Order: sequence, then structure tokens, then C-alpha cells
Amino acid sequence: MRGAETFRALPPRELRLELEALYADYTGCLDEERFEDWPAFFTEPCLYKIVPRDNFERGLPLATWLCESQGYLLDRVTGIRKTSVYAPRRIRRIVSGIRIIGWNGDALETRASFAAFETLIDELTRVFIVGEHRDRIVAADGVLKFREKVIVFDSLLVPNSLIYPL
Amino acid sequence: MRGAETFRALPPRELRLELEALYADYTGCLDEERFEDWPAFFTEPCLYKIVPRDNFERGLPLATWLCESQGYLLDRVTGIRKTSVYAPRRIRRIVSGIRIIGWNGDALETRASFAAFETLIDELTRVFIVGEHRDRIVAADGVLKFREKVIVFDSLLVPNSLIYPL
Amino acid sequence: MRGAETFRALPPRELRLELEALYADYTGCLDEERFEDWPAFFTEPCLYKIVPRDNFERGLPLATWLCESQGYLLDRVTGIRKTSVYAPRRIRRIVSGIRIIGWNGDALETRASFAAFETLIDELTRVFIVGEHRDRIVAADGVLKFREKVIVFDSLLVPNSLIYPL
Repeated sequence: MRGAETFRALPPRELRLELEALYADYTGCLDEERFEDWPAFFTEPCLYKIVPRDNFERGLPLATWLCESQGYLLDRVTGIRKTSVYAPRRIRRIVSGIRIIGWNGDALETRASFAAFETLIDELTRVFIVGEHRDRIVAADGVLKFREKVIVFDSLLVPNSLIYPL
Repeated sequence: MRGAETFRALPPRELRLELEALYADYTGCLDEERFEDWPAFFTEPCLYKIVPRDNFERGLPLATWLCESQGYLLDRVTGIRKTSVYAPRRIRRIVSGIRIIGWNGDALETRASFAAFETLIDELTRVFIVGEHRDRIVAADGVLKFREKVIVFDSLLVPNSLIYPL
Repeated sequence: MRGAETFRALPPRELRLELEALYADYTGCLDEERFEDWPAFFTEPCLYKIVPRDNFERGLPLATWLCESQGYLLDRVTGIRKTSVYAPRRIRRIVSGIRIIGWNGDALETRASFAAFETLIDELTRVFIVGEHRDRIVAADGVLKFREKVIVFDSLLVPNSLIYPL
């Protein structure tokens, strides 16, 4: 893999395996709270957006999170590390159903479903948020990176505790 | 792939990748509410059944849903589109643990676990139903299709809102 | 596969497919309550441990479950089959995000996220426990087995009903 051309030439089954590894690495990074490593999963510039499904389907612009560069992503991380007004919590992210939609120039368009679970200290685990990753992936610097990641979540309510990335 | 013979000859690892793509496509179709495309995932005739695990294990015939042709499946879709007595909701389906049980003639017997989450408007997401797909898959019309899909769900209670397919 | 050397020589993509099959088989065995088959997924001796994440990260030794041989695992199974003081329940296990960490001698170190759901009779399904498998896998007796499986769960609370294995 690794070069844009090699990426483009991968047969579908090998592509699927590369994607499964990518999503597992991405999710593992966040679940283990290695947030400082998170921006490196994106190109520079990039688009990272979290948006309620209702807004997304109506084409409304309002996003819950919007970052357009690695610097913005890093700002988020700094916010997480510096802020402590929120109760400690764990988020566990399950990803499933990775779909290859097609190529858009050098970017592969993919989708994947997710469910995230939240555990607050001294409380039982509960469903936090579910939805879909809608991504554009490119080969850059010898690895796969997200040029665009739009996370569409099913609830109309914005959870009051969307503190960590998804 | 695509022909029954090519399907039958796939080595286990390639078979697994074909199955992962199939389940991802199937789930994506339903999660995105493209219900009109759903019957095409089945052969004609077919068996589509949703049944509580307790009934299934005791061999009791009672099923929550039972469709034996694409026409029946389509009737379900019409029901969904025409009926509006239920509250709007989103279902998100997570599939995992695809297992290849073995061949039964030209059909591949598989199993996969699932968890489905429900989001009603203005409410938080909750666990809806979990269970297992017990499927027989054949190559037909050049693609993989379900000749049989028996969905066994773990709760004894029938959820009062099993409106959309699983 | 099958021999230690063949296992060691598998290219990453084929390795991933072997792991996906292994985790699916393991989870299927437990979901279907074939508990008697469960110890055979481990080497002799082995380490099977369930531990809250907080303890794990602080290096505290307290574990919720600890088994160091197939005999101990079997004792657990006997406990499940002989005891009936607890309410009947179903556990459904979803595994996702399998990650290959690297080789440690003849053992492959892997991680995978999981979410388990509990259904008590006459009740709706709920989130039971979520967390991570932290495993060491070897090729033994011609198949892949767990030499070590440490299950780290996100909640600090020990669920009062950790009766079945994870």
C-alpha cells in the first residue's frame, strides 16, 4: 500500500482489510484516550464534523463540532486535557458495517456504523450515541488518512456531554 | 465470485470478506431506510423470519414476522411507507462475529450477532433488540442473496415497536 | 496456518482474517451457551482475567475473575451449570476493532473492543458491560488459542451479575 497509486490499485478484498485495520486503529486511539495521537489520523487541511442526522438529511449547516485543520483538532485535545469541569467518564466505541462507496479522485469514500457507550464513575455503562462515519480516505505520508470525516448521529438531541472525539 | 460454482470454490478467507461486504451492504440499506431496495437481498422464494430465542430453542412455531417471498417483504415495506400511526424513529444496526457454519448444497450457512439501537425523536438512543442472524446464502443473479434469514432475538418480550426490518 | 511457524509467517491481512474468525468462534461459543467448549479456546496453562479498567490502569492486582488453567475455567462452567440461585439471562457479545499489537516470541498480542448486552426473562435488553480484550494468542494443537486473555471493563462498579464468561 502506502502510495496513492498503490492505494488506488488495491483489489476490493484487500481494501476492506486495510479499512478494517484503519478503523480499528482510529477507534483504539480514542478508546485508550491517546488523544494527542488523534490529529495524525487526518490530512492537513481536513474536515472533521459531527452533525445530527436530522440536520444532515435536511442539508442544514449546523454542526455540533466542526474542525477544518489538524490545528483545530489539537485545540480540541487541549480543551479536553485542560478542562476539568466535567465528570470523569469512559467512552467505548464499536464500529461495524464498513462500506466502500467508491472513488472520488484519489479519495476513497467509505461509510461505517458506530455505537458509543459511556461509563461515568460509579455508574453503570449506558448507550451514549450511535450513528455513521461518512469518510473520505487518502494515502498520505505512506499511510491512510482521513481527508474528511463526517459523523452523523441518530439522535436529534445533542448529548450534553460530547467532550471526547468520536 | 458471482456464479454458484465460483461462490462454492472461494477459500475461507475470501469467503469471509465477501460475507462482511454482504452484511455491511444489507445493514447499510436498512439503516439508511432504503427499504425498497431491501427485498432484492433475498432469493425468490425466500424465508425471512423474526423469532424470540425462547420459542426458537423450544422449537415453537410462533414467529414475530414471517415472509416467504419477495412480495411479502415488499408488503412490509408498503406497510412502513403507508402507515404513520407510529412515532418517527431511527434504528441503527451493528453486526459482528460473522461465522461460517458450512455448506448445505449450494447454500452457505452463516451466523452473525447483532445489536440494534432505537432513537425516538426528542429522546436519547437506547438498546432496542439484540440477537443473531441465522442465514443461508446463495449466489444468484451474479450476487450473494439470502435464501433464508432467521433472526433470533434474545428478549422474550416482543418489542412493541418492531416496525422496520432487521 | 496451524503450526507456530506458519502462524508467525502469515502476512498481516491474512492474520487479521484468522483473528476475525477466532473472535467470532469464541463469541459464538459463549453466546450460544456452549460453555463446556469454552476452556478449549485456551492453552494449558493460561491466564484468564476480568478486571475493572481503573484497577488495570493503576496496576492494582484486584481482579473480578482470575483463572490460571483450563481446570479453573472448567470449575467456572460447573459453577454456572450447578448453581441456579440467579435469574435466567441471556448475554449477547459484540466484538469490534481487532488490533494487532505485535509479536512477543511465539505469541501474537492483540486487542479488541467489546460490548455485552444482558436480557433477563420478561425484561428488555440492556447494556451489560463494555471494555477491551487484551490477548496473547498462539498456535497450539493445530489451532489458535489464547495463552492470555485479560478483559478490562470500563465501569468501576462490578456488575452484580457477572455469572457467565466474557
